Amino acid sequence: MKSVIVLLSGGLDSTVLLYKLKADGYRVQALSADYGQRHRKELDYAKEICEYTHTKHYIADLNAVKFCLLGGSQTDLSVPVPKGHYADESMKATVVPNRNMIMLSLATGLAISTKADAVAYAAHAGDHAVYPDCRPEFMTAMHTAMRLADYSPIQLLAPFATITKADIVKMGSWLNVPFEKTWSCYSGRELHDGTCGTCFERHEAFELAGVTDPTVYEKETV
Amino acid sequence: MKSVIVLLSGGLDSTVLLYKLKADGYRVQALSADYGQRHRKELDYAKEICEYTHTKHYIADLNAVKFCLLGGSQTDLSVPVPKGHYADESMKATVVPNRNMIMLSLATGLAISTKADAVAYAAHAGDHAVYPDCRPEFMTAMHTAMRLADYSPIQLLAPFATITKADIVKMGSWLNVPFEKTWSCYSGRELHDGTCGTCFERHEAFELAGVTDPTVYEKETV
Repeated sequence: MKSVIVLLSGGLDSTVLLYKLKADGYRVQALSADYGQRHRKELDYAKEICEYTHTKHYIADLNAVKFCLLGGSQTDLSVPVPKGHYADESMKATVVPNRNMIMLSLATGLAISTKADAVAYAAHAGDHAVYPDCRPEFMTAMHTAMRLADYSPIQLLAPFATITKADIVKMGSWLNVPFEKTWSCYSGRELHDGTCGTCFERHEAFELAGVTDPTVYEKETV
Repeated sequence: MKSVIVLLSGGLDSTVLLYKLKADGYRVQALSADYGQRHRKELDYAKEICEYTHTKHYIADLNAVKFCLLGGSQTDLSVPVPKGHYADESMKATVVPNRNMIMLSLATGLAISTKADAVAYAAHAGDHAVYPDCRPEFMTAMHTAMRLADYSPIQLLAPFATITKADIVKMGSWLNVPFEKTWSCYSGRELHDGTCGTCFERHEAFELAGVTDPTVYEKETV
């Protein structure tokens, strides 16, 4: 049985990925990051999904290395969360520099330590416009590095690289993913605020997929 | 003026690299890691070199993510430090899985955050036999990933990739590096123990370079 470490944010995409990997027959372990993100709440969702699916869950506490993760509205509380569409230029303010490389590197270390075969992350085609470290050419380079970093090669799986978030919602629907147990909003409020880029993107994906969105939004602007 | 983040362990190689980068005209900042290594002492040496050379010094405290860095005698105190020659099969026990990828990723984040142009590390030709993440093919893949991870490309400098430790000692001698302010021994004792692989390698490099070794060894077996 192949074994994989999945980067689990507690959001919709990575939760569907966890379900897909289990459906594909992998032994799955999950790695989340606590980097002082504004929407720390997603960590509680990640924990709950892991309990619900009986998945071993590791949390990498990166607060001590936050100086390597500065910039972007997710760690710097003085930067406002931009409103509007996810693919807009303004969304660059939500980028945490190099988060994916750091998390993939840690996951690769965890994979080596726990004798797993692969690391998976949920970057999808819609991320490409905004996040450099979600693009196929970045994935290819990281995959090569991960195969060479240790005596045993670690594979990088990014099965959503060429599909959209709407496709992910469709897949999640087939896999009976409890979408209400996932968190997307960047604002870190009690409910999804309904106005930030990720709320837009989340709701739009459900609409495009023709799947009922179970999310309770604070403002029904989406 | 170009700006670089150098991975500084406090050992001989990375200290010579810091001096070389300064001599090459870079603005240099240093990043060290505290991952509960047995030879924690090297961190004090890294600090002292940074004070001595007026270099801004960051320490990444990775103790909270040690579960991603398990294995290898450097973090697991129950694994004895192997004796003998550095290039021996036994030296694999000193490998911390994926340390370089993790440190290069963090340094890349720091470079992005501080608007530096490059990250440098001191992997050299003699490391290739033992450490997969010091090999040229790994460097090439990481360099590609680092150029793609953010909106501005970060360069990976590994100027020692094709030279030996003896060449590094020669270069350090030209650059007036205070070798006595560097630490190599893996055992973490008061003095360099003179019997572990890195002590062998250190002393041998001075001999091959024809440079007087100022190191005081506990046992003169080297």
